[in-house]
Amino acid sequence: MSTADASQRAVSWLQEFEAALGRSDLPAILAMFADEECFWRDMVAFTWNIRTMEGKQQIADFLSATLASVEPRNFRLEGDAHDADDVTEARFTFETKVAKGRGILRLKDNRAWTILTLAQALKGFEEKCGRTRDKGVEHGVHRDRTTWLERRETEEATLGYTTQPYCLIIGGGQGGLALGARLRRLDVPTIVLEKNARAGDSWRNRYRSLCLHDPVWYDHMPYLPFPDHWPVFSPKDKLGDWLEMYAKAMELNCWTSSECRSARFDDVRKEWIVVVDRGGERVTLRPKHLVLATGMSGVPEIPKFPGAERFRGEQCHSSKFTSGEAYAGKRCVIVGANNSAHDICADLWEHGADVTMVQRSPTVVARSDSLMELAQGPLYSEDALSRGVTTDIADLTVASLPHRVAPRRAAKVYEEILRRDRDLYDRLDKVGFLYSFGEDGSGIHAKYVRRGSGYYIDVGACELVANGSIKLKSRVTVEQLTETSVVLTDGTALPADLIVYATGYGSMNGWAASLISQEVADKVGKCWGVGSDTAKDPGPWEGELRNMWKPTQQEALWFHGGNLQQARFYSLILALQIKARQVGLPTPVYGQQRVHHLS
Amino acid sequence: MSTADASQRAVSWLQEFEAALGRSDLPAILAMFADEECFWRDMVAFTWNIRTMEGKQQIADFLSATLASVEPRNFRLEGDAHDADDVTEARFTFETKVAKGRGILRLKDNRAWTILTLAQALKGFEEKCGRTRDKGVEHGVHRDRTTWLERRETEEATLGYTTQPYCLIIGGGQGGLALGARLRRLDVPTIVLEKNARAGDSWRNRYRSLCLHDPVWYDHMPYLPFPDHWPVFSPKDKLGDWLEMYAKAMELNCWTSSECRSARFDDVRKEWIVVVDRGGERVTLRPKHLVLATGMSGVPEIPKFPGAERFRGEQCHSSKFTSGEAYAGKRCVIVGANNSAHDICADLWEHGADVTMVQRSPTVVARSDSLMELAQGPLYSEDALSRGVTTDIADLTVASLPHRVAPRRAAKVYEEILRRDRDLYDRLDKVGFLYSFGEDGSGIHAKYVRRGSGYYIDVGACELVANGSIKLKSRVTVEQLTETSVVLTDGTALPADLIVYATGYGSMNGWAASLISQEVADKVGKCWGVGSDTAKDPGPWEGELRNMWKPTQQEALWFHGGNLQQARFYSLILALQIKARQVGLPTPVYGQQRVHHLS
Repeated sequence: MSTADASQRAVSWLQEFEAALGRSDLPAILAMFADEECFWRDMVAFTWNIRTMEGKQQIADFLSATLASVEPRNFRLEGDAHDADDVTEARFTFETKVAKGRGILRLKDNRAWTILTLAQALKGFEEKCGRTRDKGVEHGVHRDRTTWLERRETEEATLGYTTQPYCLIIGGGQGGLALGARLRRLDVPTIVLEKNARAGDSWRNRYRSLCLHDPVWYDHMPYLPFPDHWPVFSPKDKLGDWLEMYAKAMELNCWTSSECRSARFDDVRKEWIVVVDRGGERVTLRPKHLVLATGMSGVPEIPKFPGAERFRGEQCHSSKFTSGEAYAGKRCVIVGANNSAHDICADLWEHGADVTMVQRSPTVVARSDSLMELAQGPLYSEDALSRGVTTDIADLTVASLPHRVAPRRAAKVYEEILRRDRDLYDRLDKVGFLYSFGEDGSGIHAKYVRRGSGYYIDVGACELVANGSIKLKSRVTVEQLTETSVVLTDGTALPADLIVYATGYGSMNGWAASLISQEVADKVGKCWGVGSDTAKDPGPWEGELRNMWKPTQQEALWFHGGNLQQARFYSLILALQIKARQVGLPTPVYGQQRVHHLS
Repeated sequence: MSTADASQRAVSWLQEFEAALGRSDLPAILAMFADEECFWRDMVAFTWNIRTMEGKQQIADFLSATLASVEPRNFRLEGDAHDADDVTEARFTFETKVAKGRGILRLKDNRAWTILTLAQALKGFEEKCGRTRDKGVEHGVHRDRTTWLERRETEEATLGYTTQPYCLIIGGGQGGLALGARLRRLDVPTIVLEKNARAGDSWRNRYRSLCLHDPVWYDHMPYLPFPDHWPVFSPKDKLGDWLEMYAKAMELNCWTSSECRSARFDDVRKEWIVVVDRGGERVTLRPKHLVLATGMSGVPEIPKFPGAERFRGEQCHSSKFTSGEAYAGKRCVIVGANNSAHDICADLWEHGADVTMVQRSPTVVARSDSLMELAQGPLYSEDALSRGVTTDIADLTVASLPHRVAPRRAAKVYEEILRRDRDLYDRLDKVGFLYSFGEDGSGIHAKYVRRGSGYYIDVGACELVANGSIKLKSRVTVEQLTETSVVLTDGTALPADLIVYATGYGSMNGWAASLISQEVADKVGKCWGVGSDTAKDPGPWEGELRNMWKPTQQEALWFHGGNLQQARFYSLILALQIKARQVGLPTPVYGQQRVHHLS
């Protein structure tokens, strides 16, 4: 069927939908959704939350609670709709009483299978850009005129001292900076705390060989995309430099060499009291909102193996490993078999170390090239751009797939990857490497959503494992350490000069525990994961990432983290929620998440 | 007539044109040009020069000399053609033996009135971007792998010491940096010398209140446009910061605190010997090409008034003036009535000084708002963007208007400006201010092209002149200075604490005189201006800016300068000429400019 037909179908559906919404005619609305399966995912526009309603009953409950106050209207097709298989997919714009929104609709047989509604801007508080940008100079003549530089210097000198930020962001990586930029454009006074000496150091300080594993099309920061010669996989130091420039270009109040020492919420004054060490100076900040953008990875987890204290060689967590340079000829044991483990093993091997990887459980593995082409390529690539799929449209499309649906779609991609790279998987099998595509075959991104780890995007180390350059011990774990070796559960003793624990990280609420209190950490509970009931993501099903970018059980505490795509996309979702509170819009939260797990 | 008709006409013309070019059929080609008036402007593609051929005879001569070696082909319409008044305007792409090109064609009655042909890339030496960008990481495993950071640090440590730059650019303002970025993308080893401590300081060091007089849509640097909230008129310090970040993001080898002490061309080795003071260290560089990007304004010109040495107050050139802050209550005389004079007068007045402007000759004046809407708006504005006129298309369109034609078109704009702002002009008249739109009514941009000065883009100071806040002495000049005052030719003595000479700059070849030798400065002759036979732009008619961005009479010496639009656009034109020489392409220069004026 033609694009015109698809568009006509989408327009008809949207018109009918708007009319039914306008009449608050629940039966009519529900009749427009598919019977077998349907989803309505909302981000802020209806729920002041991030929430997926699954099936007609949940949709009915949600509309009953929200429709009267939201006043949705002006649903309009954006661009052309398209048919693919038995699905018509269409972007649209709409409005509510207070917001401008966008969405994506998927129809099957003219009924909604999935719909996403998303707030994009708050009416009357739109970002000043394009036609509404500042003039930069006040034309005419003005005695006591101040210049841009003077205003910037005044702001830097006073914010946090004689005036208070409305929002404090802890963490100056891509997440903190992207959110800082959004809040700057929304005129929300904000300070970003970065513990390192320079913005971007959280990347610079990682291991020497690190490059992003996601390609450039996936990684743009908001407002200031990379130039078109930017390498496909950003080297960590180049990315660090970019983030540092970004903070400056976006005029962020980024306090470097600044660490949060303590934070507690004053329930009476409804504000945080945050003690900061700013390069040795003690500053107390009183922001209304506190965002932890300290990395979705949380606090490094090091397993407690018997005998660890008597081991005479070096031991470190992967986050502290920087380079294999010092280890030529040394015996290195890497515990873990995910991304960092592979990268570190390869780096050590390249520097002439004797390397053994200890794999305790299966790893989801896929070749970077295959992923780029088959998984990310349809949305984030030069091909996608040439088909008109901008970064913005790609992000919207990703958001439009409910967490129930995305893994199913992904599983088809991994079937193709398995066919294509059969030889590599067979060779990994032969050396005993435990590979998997996850419990439901859904691969890397689903793993990332469920537990934030458990995979390796192969940029070369699989070959080293397959050909035996990196020695492998799998189906085992560590039983104990001796003074000179790592003893495995199969009885093998691996003599070692260095042990690297590539054993992952705790939940982000570990940051809340260390910066605020265990009580608050427990109150908000586990972060990340959707309740998929798979490894490290226990049920019940929650349908959205726990605690991320949405209200938590701790008033005025927010979590922001993830890769560069998430930093870009969710920074707006979170910024709009904070802006709404700053200007006093009512923000009734529908479907506030309950806490099922403490970490 | 419809766009489809216009496009069809353009396609037909281009096909016939290509066929005639292919047959080297001069009579047929010439018959395709309009009889009354026709122009062919070429930038690098055919001429390895910047050159406008006017009329059929010049076109015939030019084609006879170039056609055989250029081998033009594959002329294709780009986008839609449009009709406006009696002209059909169309963009097109084409190729030559060695280059990919673009152009704009204007037809009147199906014959060419103007055509622009422009080289955009050299075949086999295209910039690596989009699909051809670097990968950033070498996947697979490689012993002795180097990282991006290590390679950058090695380059910074060795270039200029153990390896030589192919090109040396003197000046790290927008011109030097834009060209540096082009050459970086073309893999031409280049060093940019910036005498100040930081890139961007050439803007930061200017007077406190300075903002760009051109709007943001006109000012993007290549590859890395400003984000869409960037203010309309960039404050100087913000622009300075942006340029500094730009140098870093584009990985330019920008040597700051570095001044050229001397430069001479070694005719035997065909390279420059340039002695540089790099923060106190003496370094001798041997680049094959030398670019002066020291500012199109050349060396500050201070008139020699009798008695200047006995004046006991302060005297400075406008380029040294930074702020009116110290002059509250002081009597200040500003000699000159162009942009800097007005800005400085307003700044002094805003700080409570007693200000007199001495206007010696008429100034082209227009209100910034009117210019933005009527002069720049059609190509550089949000409106233009919404009509699909990207920065790139706007630049191409500007380039497509020969210097004979542009002033005629501009004169119509100024007729409208005069109507619209009649009241302001009448009030200026009333206080004796000499305003003009130039000899042929062509206004500010034509003045800029002809002499680089002579105008004021009114951002407010006209009101101060009109209402008498800034006192005005016009139709006079300075006769002499006494110990305490400025004596004018009408006998008035203006008591003064400060005299600012807003008296402009010499020709850019003044930089060649001071950095290289008077002999070389005289050999290349006057820079800028087109031979319009108007004030400060003596004839004969040359039709292109003298010495700018094209081969000069001094081998391997180039001039690059101008505003941000020119920095962006002409940096590519110049970079392609340098790249072609680096890789040994034949670059026969057609129509090398002769020298008619020494300064």
